[in-house]
Amino acid sequence: MDLLSIKDPSFLKEMNNEDLKELSADIRKFLIEKLSITGGHLGPNLGVVELTIALHKEFNSPKDKFLFDVGHQSYVHKILTGRACQFDTLKKYKGLCGFPKMNESEHDVWETGHSSTSLSGAMGMAAARDLKKEKNFVLPIIGDGALTGGMALEALNHIGHEKKDMIVILNDNEMSIAPNVGALHSVLGRLRTAGKYNWVKDELELLLKKIPAVGGKVAATAERVKDSLKYLLVSGVFFEELGFTYLGPVDGHNFDELFENFRYAKKTKGPVLLHVITKKGKGYSPAESDTIGNWHGTGPYKIETGDFVKTVTTAPAWSSLVSETVRKLARTDERIVAITPAMPVGSKLEGFASEFPERMYDVGIAEQHAATFAAGLATQKMKPFLAIYSTFLQRAYDQVVHDICRQNLNVFFGIDRAGLVGADGETHQGVFDIAFMRHIPNMVLMMPKDENEGQHMVNTALKYDDGPIAMRFPRGNGYGIPMDDNLQEIPIGTWDVLKEGRDACILTFGTTIPMAMEAAEYLDKQGYSIKVVNARFIKPLDNDMMHQLLEQKMPILTIEEAVLQGGFGSAVIEFAHEHGYHGAIIDRMGIPDRFIEHGSVDQLLAEIGMTVEDTVRNIKRITPKKQKRA
Amino acid sequence: MDLLSIKDPSFLKEMNNEDLKELSADIRKFLIEKLSITGGHLGPNLGVVELTIALHKEFNSPKDKFLFDVGHQSYVHKILTGRACQFDTLKKYKGLCGFPKMNESEHDVWETGHSSTSLSGAMGMAAARDLKKEKNFVLPIIGDGALTGGMALEALNHIGHEKKDMIVILNDNEMSIAPNVGALHSVLGRLRTAGKYNWVKDELELLLKKIPAVGGKVAATAERVKDSLKYLLVSGVFFEELGFTYLGPVDGHNFDELFENFRYAKKTKGPVLLHVITKKGKGYSPAESDTIGNWHGTGPYKIETGDFVKTVTTAPAWSSLVSETVRKLARTDERIVAITPAMPVGSKLEGFASEFPERMYDVGIAEQHAATFAAGLATQKMKPFLAIYSTFLQRAYDQVVHDICRQNLNVFFGIDRAGLVGADGETHQGVFDIAFMRHIPNMVLMMPKDENEGQHMVNTALKYDDGPIAMRFPRGNGYGIPMDDNLQEIPIGTWDVLKEGRDACILTFGTTIPMAMEAAEYLDKQGYSIKVVNARFIKPLDNDMMHQLLEQKMPILTIEEAVLQGGFGSAVIEFAHEHGYHGAIIDRMGIPDRFIEHGSVDQLLAEIGMTVEDTVRNIKRITPKKQKRA
Repeated sequence: MDLLSIKDPSFLKEMNNEDLKELSADIRKFLIEKLSITGGHLGPNLGVVELTIALHKEFNSPKDKFLFDVGHQSYVHKILTGRACQFDTLKKYKGLCGFPKMNESEHDVWETGHSSTSLSGAMGMAAARDLKKEKNFVLPIIGDGALTGGMALEALNHIGHEKKDMIVILNDNEMSIAPNVGALHSVLGRLRTAGKYNWVKDELELLLKKIPAVGGKVAATAERVKDSLKYLLVSGVFFEELGFTYLGPVDGHNFDELFENFRYAKKTKGPVLLHVITKKGKGYSPAESDTIGNWHGTGPYKIETGDFVKTVTTAPAWSSLVSETVRKLARTDERIVAITPAMPVGSKLEGFASEFPERMYDVGIAEQHAATFAAGLATQKMKPFLAIYSTFLQRAYDQVVHDICRQNLNVFFGIDRAGLVGADGETHQGVFDIAFMRHIPNMVLMMPKDENEGQHMVNTALKYDDGPIAMRFPRGNGYGIPMDDNLQEIPIGTWDVLKEGRDACILTFGTTIPMAMEAAEYLDKQGYSIKVVNARFIKPLDNDMMHQLLEQKMPILTIEEAVLQGGFGSAVIEFAHEHGYHGAIIDRMGIPDRFIEHGSVDQLLAEIGMTVEDTVRNIKRITPKKQKRA
Repeated sequence: MDLLSIKDPSFLKEMNNEDLKELSADIRKFLIEKLSITGGHLGPNLGVVELTIALHKEFNSPKDKFLFDVGHQSYVHKILTGRACQFDTLKKYKGLCGFPKMNESEHDVWETGHSSTSLSGAMGMAAARDLKKEKNFVLPIIGDGALTGGMALEALNHIGHEKKDMIVILNDNEMSIAPNVGALHSVLGRLRTAGKYNWVKDELELLLKKIPAVGGKVAATAERVKDSLKYLLVSGVFFEELGFTYLGPVDGHNFDELFENFRYAKKTKGPVLLHVITKKGKGYSPAESDTIGNWHGTGPYKIETGDFVKTVTTAPAWSSLVSETVRKLARTDERIVAITPAMPVGSKLEGFASEFPERMYDVGIAEQHAATFAAGLATQKMKPFLAIYSTFLQRAYDQVVHDICRQNLNVFFGIDRAGLVGADGETHQGVFDIAFMRHIPNMVLMMPKDENEGQHMVNTALKYDDGPIAMRFPRGNGYGIPMDDNLQEIPIGTWDVLKEGRDACILTFGTTIPMAMEAAEYLDKQGYSIKVVNARFIKPLDNDMMHQLLEQKMPILTIEEAVLQGGFGSAVIEFAHEHGYHGAIIDRMGIPDRFIEHGSVDQLLAEIGMTVEDTVRNIKRITPKKQKRA
């Protein structure tokens, strides 16, 4: 059918299974074609085509609430709710968001991006429904990987306790982003292969009847055996223990099975866990045979061959630069251990893992545990390298404060995807880390200007042994500049003057340095003389240079690709006021106080006033007129 | 024996069980006496007397690593490691810390305070041990309440997966701080009453032999039935599913049982969970019969009667003021729901719970879930009140950012114990919340000057419907001032001038207002004229008043009982620079960039330079001489 004509999912009610199968094929074709141009989360969405169609046919969105955990698997839902026509703009500036978004559709009732939030959200919706005495179904759709997130386990525990009516769809594709880890995975593995053994049930019921009744003991004993029976019968021990009715496993690509189980779940009181087995990448062979997560989220690709359209770059990816430098250092320092919360591919740790398998830990989607596990290692004088995306480090804030910084443990944070990340949008922008890390005592926070300084900073961090130290670095690639052969140590709290000047000074670091240099050089041609400093230590500041600049009464412009409130610029003005430089002229550029949606990084920077032109204008505003054309 | 003479736990090796029982009695007597004067965590420590003695006798600390989860149950450990003589200074300034502290003893290998961190820390220590090819035992000691924390579940999952040698001591006293909640609790409950049914085992083995061998199916089937058998035999389904060897339940007050199980655990490969049943408050009847947590952490008490030594105050406790105002408003607003992560008593929600049981949710120690559960309620236009201590809100930072503020949901945070908390020390100081909340878009953050303004702010928050709103308030009691009968709404972002003045202005809020007023009045007598503003909205600032002050070139002193980096004072100087008031004289008082240990709040404030005298000195420094005695 013409997917572009779909306005809402009501048309599904008239369809029979054959129609639905055709629709599934159409949707797969559509996704494979559209995403070959735009890129996107192909694998996860191909896996949930039938599941999403079946949900929309059997339930009534938005009255019934679908909560897509993580949310990158909501494309089919977007197509069925009238957004097929927007797929050319997927993840583009002002275009269709790659995650559920309330302002796109009334069918998006819960926004996601980070993992493991859907069960807590669903518990809230179910509690609200019951208090308001309304009737509807609440259906969180959560992957097996997201289940290992502590928050999801907290929610399972609470939902099981409260016995709220809710149908949890466990979308089990045997992978999170990378192959799944953890003991929970083996529980699921056993359930998957278990099947149904009704004859065992019969035998056990027989046994149950033979249990002798000896006074008061009998009740407890019978209850206990029944409990045990349940494990044999229902196959979902783990969930049953937590108070759920377990249904499944169900073939997530078989409409008959799905509908049968949905209908049974609807009639069941209390929380239900419906275990659905799906195949990531289903229907597109390159994605189906993916074992390491290359087809989880992709850039553009050639449909026929499954080859990715390579962007020509000789510069190393930042993640790769960092992880490979850690790997090099690990050859001579046996204390170095690498930790990733489910991002071995994204963090480019494959090389480290193959060379040092015993020193590599993928802990699954479990950022809190990852951080405090690192703390435990550090108490024993190991040197843990925690590779973590800026946006996901948010989830370990308390662990960074309470376990790492408070105990002043020598953990090295490689904060990946710091700054604007672009297409993934507001849930993934790495713009808060400076503001939430800078105020924690004992923390050292730095950002390199290029990949060569980056490798020296990694070395600095792994040689440092006075406490926690973090290096933030951006998504994407370096500049392809020449690399020093020998790794150096950069003295903590020292900045680097990139360009001298007399009239004003730009303090910046990382990705915004080229913009600052370009603005300064442009202004110099206009007769200004603008100094540019690589303020590579965000904490501690370079105190000597700060005093020097402030004593010279140099107007200062700070630039950071991070939120302005409490950020680096604030540290600079705090310093000025703390040391009595009350007349200091300091202006700040950075991310304003709102969430920044998706788009290319350049588009987003332009939107928020962080271009060369903005820099020029800001410098001009703070630079006294008398010094022009000096 | 003379507990004061203990230097280290080696003396235990020579003791027989009779000696140990005598020692237990001595320790109980000591704790009951000492804590009757100093206060402290009596109940938890009376419960672990035998367990801690047995651990120190059977294992070799500090080579073997004891990690006390939460850590308030480490008093017996402190006595056995040579610190009995310091108990008169327990939780006092420069005295013995109420939690494990590395700088007190080499036996304190892991510092705690927040819950659920010990398993992750232990995993790190076990991994380090194995990499270094060392031999020792790692023993996290965790309560049943702390197990519901998502982080502990993340760690269980990882430990089960890695199969590290480790002995987890589950100290099950059937309560966390308040009676325990959640489905996990019922799992434990069933285990506790289960006992051993070996005859069932025999019957089932018989059954197992009768299973017909039908081709390839037999292996899977037999395996499956064996899995199920395990549930009957070992009683620890939940933990076994996660890859642990489950031992117990063991009577935690019986040395024979403890030693037998310790020895078995030592010989077991891979992770062991030893389920120990203890009685909180054991040996002191008022504490033993406590059902609501009054004896969890206490102030001084009379030993004979168990009566608490009441501090005479007619002023309401802040927690009570807030929760009771919420309760009052809930009578006319059915949308109001209260949520606490395991602190119904601390947050004084008993009244609300008894009046509105269906609108009260204690989710257990699960701050992340608490926050996102509130978000889910708010999507359905309910008005969730999340009662949470400042220090524990740290654990929900990502949920506040990603689920609440990003979706701009109308959640009311009652941030309790904000500012210095005193005796509980550095793990519990509520000093980061401004710095980690202020930079999140959409957040409104306020703090009242007294309990009357407090009740109006609660009303303001629950009438507000534009997004998240938070009120922070201190530990302890209000001032006992008269209360208005009618609740008012305070316009968002408005400050209140408490005292006019011409020479300088103090901007402050909450607990530091009396100090500011006293300093201002003292300075007025010296011929200054000092303005004092109740800056009750930390975010947004009162823009009109800020412009007015800055246009008048009024020197400004900001005071906050919170960290200086990125705090309220930073917001004020950010404002000045953002609006071009570059000559503004602004000085900031607050918590410096280090962790603040335990002591009385007054002692701590004096230590960090936050007294009336400091305020006077700071104001004098920024106030131009010419204006003196104007």
